[in-house]
Amino acid sequence: MYVSDGTARKILKEAGASRVSAEAAQEFQKRINRYAFDVAQKAVKLSKHAKRKTVAGSDISLAAY
Amino acid sequence: MYVSDGTARKILKEAGASRVSAEAAQEFQKRINRYAFDVAQKAVKLSKHAKRKTVAGSDISLAAY
Repeated sequence: MYVSDGTARKILKEAGASRVSAEAAQEFQKRINRYAFDVAQKAVKLSKHAKRKTVAGSDISLAAY
Repeated sequence: MYVSDGTARKILKEAGASRVSAEAAQEFQKRINRYAFDVAQKAVKLSKHAKRKTVAGSDISLAAY
């Protein structure tokens, strides 16, 4: 997990949560992780498609949803 | 930023990147951050809509995209 349980809870608190269940913190971590890895994989594919070895900002922008 | 520059680069490398531009790492951090905060805000709204004070796993699932 790239984001800790503590960070997941912190984000939810900053977004206005009074309390956060253990399951919610875990699910949130999982979703952030999945999103990040999906975008990363797509960005790498886009950089290769453009025949570059360096992932560029434009690859991230195009990959992100 | 909830995810550091180093973590953003690490995720991209794990997804197969050979090299990552400074701009890409920064854009990636920004996108992860935005996604996490958007999902968190939506989850908090959903918990309030359900008249709960605790954000539940189901709020996260429903909020995530």
